[in-house]
Amino acid sequence: MESKSSDRRKFLKNTAAFVGAAAAAAAAGRPVSGETPMSEMEMPDLAAAIAYGQRSPYVKSKRIPVLERMSPDDFGMTFHVTSPLQDAVGIITPSSLHYISTHRGSYVPNINPAEHRLMIHGMVDRPLIFSVDELKRLPFVTRTHFLECLGNRAKASHKTVQESHGLTSCSEWTGVPLSLLLKEAGVQSSAAFIVAEGAETVKGATSIPIAKAMDDCLIVYGQNGEALRPHQGFPIRLLVPGFEGMHNVKYLRRIKVVEKDYMTYNDYGHLVPDARVASLTRVIGPKSVITFPSGEQKLPGPGFYEITGLAWSGTAAIRSVEISTDGGQSWKAAEFRTPSHPMAHVRFAYPWMWDGKECVILSRSTDEAGQRQPTRAEAAKYWNMTDDKDFRVPGADNSVFPWRIAGDGSVHNGLA
Amino acid sequence: MESKSSDRRKFLKNTAAFVGAAAAAAAAGRPVSGETPMSEMEMPDLAAAIAYGQRSPYVKSKRIPVLERMSPDDFGMTFHVTSPLQDAVGIITPSSLHYISTHRGSYVPNINPAEHRLMIHGMVDRPLIFSVDELKRLPFVTRTHFLECLGNRAKASHKTVQESHGLTSCSEWTGVPLSLLLKEAGVQSSAAFIVAEGAETVKGATSIPIAKAMDDCLIVYGQNGEALRPHQGFPIRLLVPGFEGMHNVKYLRRIKVVEKDYMTYNDYGHLVPDARVASLTRVIGPKSVITFPSGEQKLPGPGFYEITGLAWSGTAAIRSVEISTDGGQSWKAAEFRTPSHPMAHVRFAYPWMWDGKECVILSRSTDEAGQRQPTRAEAAKYWNMTDDKDFRVPGADNSVFPWRIAGDGSVHNGLA
Repeated sequence: MESKSSDRRKFLKNTAAFVGAAAAAAAAGRPVSGETPMSEMEMPDLAAAIAYGQRSPYVKSKRIPVLERMSPDDFGMTFHVTSPLQDAVGIITPSSLHYISTHRGSYVPNINPAEHRLMIHGMVDRPLIFSVDELKRLPFVTRTHFLECLGNRAKASHKTVQESHGLTSCSEWTGVPLSLLLKEAGVQSSAAFIVAEGAETVKGATSIPIAKAMDDCLIVYGQNGEALRPHQGFPIRLLVPGFEGMHNVKYLRRIKVVEKDYMTYNDYGHLVPDARVASLTRVIGPKSVITFPSGEQKLPGPGFYEITGLAWSGTAAIRSVEISTDGGQSWKAAEFRTPSHPMAHVRFAYPWMWDGKECVILSRSTDEAGQRQPTRAEAAKYWNMTDDKDFRVPGADNSVFPWRIAGDGSVHNGLA
Repeated sequence: MESKSSDRRKFLKNTAAFVGAAAAAAAAGRPVSGETPMSEMEMPDLAAAIAYGQRSPYVKSKRIPVLERMSPDDFGMTFHVTSPLQDAVGIITPSSLHYISTHRGSYVPNINPAEHRLMIHGMVDRPLIFSVDELKRLPFVTRTHFLECLGNRAKASHKTVQESHGLTSCSEWTGVPLSLLLKEAGVQSSAAFIVAEGAETVKGATSIPIAKAMDDCLIVYGQNGEALRPHQGFPIRLLVPGFEGMHNVKYLRRIKVVEKDYMTYNDYGHLVPDARVASLTRVIGPKSVITFPSGEQKLPGPGFYEITGLAWSGTAAIRSVEISTDGGQSWKAAEFRTPSHPMAHVRFAYPWMWDGKECVILSRSTDEAGQRQPTRAEAAKYWNMTDDKDFRVPGADNSVFPWRIAGDGSVHNGLA
């Protein structure tokens, strides 16, 4: 691309500038690199650190709860914990930093996998029950998919990208195709939905169309190369690629094949009078967000930067991402820095020279189905509302999100 | 494929058999699934567990040192820690379980990234020094690559796949192309190699041909979506895709552009009289290993299983993997269950009906350059040696590795 090589040339000039001082020091023979006395990393339990490694004590990236911990008596209260997208690289979310969304506060079931079972029942010819070991013997697939909570939407009060978009993550999942189990059970012809139910006290049940269940859903036991984590549903969860997070039932123990869409505890999000809203709450996106530069970060001065972020769609792979650095007046193609898998995060980047003036940067994605992420103005028009400060998208909000960069390099929520 | 759908049919029959008992229990109305009383997972430090998640206490998979911990006075002694391949799923190795190979025992430098610098010097027009933050401002790439220690070779005494092949791992790496930095520094025309040096006391330096350095090497700061781990070289390491592990210098602090292949402390592995051996010790593979069924596992009885494992090559992506279940007399194509990236692990699987008789299972890989993993007989012929129990491949050993399955389902090292 023309623009790319042009930006690269500018980058090189700038690099020469910002390393000049240090290079001069080297030429003068002054001590420069790696001469700092180093200590041994403290590992109080060395055997444990060898068995299962730790982060550097200098790395502080962490998940942050949206709400404080609730009492175990607060039955049914939701609990959301955001992933630090501002620190993320690539597309894999470390399992330790995967966002959490649960309806039982911080309660995490402590399940012995040897005792756990998955039952498939309801409108099937042969009800089946599988132990976890039996599931692991079956033909498996490994796929990279995002998860996102429907509540992952930017508010004007959000200061960081962790707050505005931190309820999405992406992992390499391993498991058994649900279609394999359903075919073996023999789904009856009048079946239209499945109700999936977890082992939590509140069950976390949701209804999923049978067409989706027979398409690409997985019974997952592996996450990023190891066992599924407790906060993500150990020992097994349902994965419903591209559907909003709550359909991906954790601690999965029962799948009932049924004749219609049953209302479950978890379906409160679908209790909306407007059919257009309801229809928009199952499948995510297309969506994108810039993770650098993002809120509460600060550019040290004019010069070369790479704008980077994540894009995803619940319908297909992301085909392209465009960047605007002038508040949406013009758009240019970003580059992909990772493969773009169906229903997965893709990492985009856009080489950019910042001139030091205040500006608004935006990203928008288009998926392989041809769907383009709407601007807020487009969303307002769709909803027949006014695109002002008070406008909130009534359904799932996948609208284009702005970061405002001030003249001093500080980055702010563009909705504020 | 004919064979595949045939195996699937057999699998289905078998599934019906092994879940039959449980399904009968369900039909009889006996308590079956998820009724076990559950406890809350104990998290002594709940805030820490929310901030950075943990494994289930039921998951025990761990790295195992090849040697016991050595005294810090044992300067230069090697230390190898194997990754539990028998428990791995997909192709991402969790960073906490990535194999470790170091020349300073269990000593891990505790580096403050704010004080760390990378210097590029030697036969360049403009010596350069970068802070870690400066490196992170530059154009980045994210790629999935394996690492493997040259010492990763099966011995007859190895009982598990962790022992025989556990010195390889695969991660999603993020960093800056080394070529970008070298071009900016201006490599002089007579330069032929770089010497890369780490911040460890023993430096971990190695010589790498300039053509490779300008091709696909990375200065890596990200691993599986977060900061590089201390055991893998925090804050930055060199990644030399496909080259043996020791070239991938950890705690990277200096790259010197030089006119020839310098002998460094780390190059003892190349001190071999036979030029054929020396020439085989930089680039890995093609190679593969079956991780299930593997040593010390036990098949519960005849029936359906998926043989699965990993394949990789230091030259290119893996094109195909073949499986033999008759000791190498016949070979059939395995399926890939993940994308096959250049110089990365690929996960293969082969649906299989075990008839309960003793047999030897093998895997062999072919890469996109057309190189096929040699059988031990082919390796012996190449070396003009006899393929008997005492035969050991003199160079890097990427030969086909056998698992012997006994009539009772127990799995054993086929070299023993």
